[in-house]
Amino acid sequence: MEFTKMHGLGNDFLVFYGEKALPKEASYLAQKWCNRNFGIGADGLVFILPSEQADFNMRIINSDGTEAEQCGNAIRCVCKYVYEKGYVRSERVTIETLGAGVQQAVLQTDSGVVTSVRIDMGEPILAGRAIPTKLDASPVLDWPIEAAGQKFNVTAVSMGNPHCIIYVEDAASFDLNTWGPRLETHLFFPQKTNVEFATIISRNRVEMRVWERGAGATLACGTGACATLVSSVLHGYTNRAAWIGLPGGDLFVEWDEVDNHVYMNGPAETVYEGSVNR
Amino acid sequence: MEFTKMHGLGNDFLVFYGEKALPKEASYLAQKWCNRNFGIGADGLVFILPSEQADFNMRIINSDGTEAEQCGNAIRCVCKYVYEKGYVRSERVTIETLGAGVQQAVLQTDSGVVTSVRIDMGEPILAGRAIPTKLDASPVLDWPIEAAGQKFNVTAVSMGNPHCIIYVEDAASFDLNTWGPRLETHLFFPQKTNVEFATIISRNRVEMRVWERGAGATLACGTGACATLVSSVLHGYTNRAAWIGLPGGDLFVEWDEVDNHVYMNGPAETVYEGSVNR
Repeated sequence: MEFTKMHGLGNDFLVFYGEKALPKEASYLAQKWCNRNFGIGADGLVFILPSEQADFNMRIINSDGTEAEQCGNAIRCVCKYVYEKGYVRSERVTIETLGAGVQQAVLQTDSGVVTSVRIDMGEPILAGRAIPTKLDASPVLDWPIEAAGQKFNVTAVSMGNPHCIIYVEDAASFDLNTWGPRLETHLFFPQKTNVEFATIISRNRVEMRVWERGAGATLACGTGACATLVSSVLHGYTNRAAWIGLPGGDLFVEWDEVDNHVYMNGPAETVYEGSVNR
Repeated sequence: MEFTKMHGLGNDFLVFYGEKALPKEASYLAQKWCNRNFGIGADGLVFILPSEQADFNMRIINSDGTEAEQCGNAIRCVCKYVYEKGYVRSERVTIETLGAGVQQAVLQTDSGVVTSVRIDMGEPILAGRAIPTKLDASPVLDWPIEAAGQKFNVTAVSMGNPHCIIYVEDAASFDLNTWGPRLETHLFFPQKTNVEFATIISRNRVEMRVWERGAGATLACGTGACATLVSSVLHGYTNRAAWIGLPGGDLFVEWDEVDNHVYMNGPAETVYEGSVNR
């Protein structure tokens, strides 16, 4: 089977094109091929399949064999792949996802190369009960909670999944591995939460590190970057469009005043082409 | 550039064939391509080059850009590669290495596929000063030392690099990350040491985990497996030929009574073929 290794901010995938449907053994193949020493090495497999509702259907199988509902980093890779291979001619691409319906992407291109992809991430959810949090307020802004004897002021935003944003003096040196898991499982968040530690650099830039629900520290989290921008706008810290700096690189996030949608702009990279026996 | 991803017991390499000499930018390429998220992903690059003294010359560039002097896991991959591609016809292959001269390998094959490679690892060094240790004795057997208040009986063997073997009740559950680094840098070993925690299973099998000097916990260490077999024979725990079980898989090690050489038999696997722009 032919594949292309791609990544979005270091979140890396083996991209497969040409199957009619998700292979029955996709879960087994993901566990085998994603292994970084004994296999090919990646965070997940991405299958680009035919779709009746959109240009393509994207299915993502994580390295543990489970299926992901959506992933902003993967969708940018898919857009770059189908455009540069000539499978779409337009700079507007629609991708059907398992958990987030049909997503709309707009490509920025330069001489046939996709340099950036803009994804409509929809409207943020600010109502406490809907995020969900234990607090019935909207928005949940700087709410004081205690975890293992330490006090935190948390802001909660859902982008389809729950996020908890905490502003710290220096996100780069903050002890993510100690406090990430304690906040992820805090009872204030009945379905657990992703946790972002953010530092305001200017009205146009926020640096952050993310602890992903169920995954731990990662290089980049698209919905986390969007939630952080929304939180920073609500606080009056940044403009409605700003760069969010993550360990894996930068995303440019906009929260549109007119349609209330959040738009995420980011890169995708092709690393190499490979061929493996199934 | 075309490459083949291979591994020996999970120690994985991108293997390149066809260059006349080591590329000038090999160190840069290794750091870029070995990165597991942003690059291709591997422990190192292996270049198979022409040799005047042997069938081939092998050069290994680690993921940090430094050059390795030798590597038993890499040499097995090189042997499998050149045989299965038809670049050698004989089951006896000689490989020139940077630090260990010309190494002799004998291949076991089945219908053109290399199933196992036997490497002559040379004679073990048992003299304490030569290993080197602080003790002027030969062999250094169960010598009591203290590290951070804990007592250990250490056996020291050099296979060209120093090893410290400690027998424990259950290597699988032993706290490698705490004691490995403390013994690696213990003053008893003036050039530091690799550390093996080993458990005797039977006269034909030892289970071990290894803390590599400068690299930490790894899936497999060929010289560490050889040193452990030598130590186990010196103690009378095992026969002169035994299976050494490592986290990445098994090696079969023999200490020949006649020529005093240690022979290591192990597998190599091909994972996929790739192509990357330089």
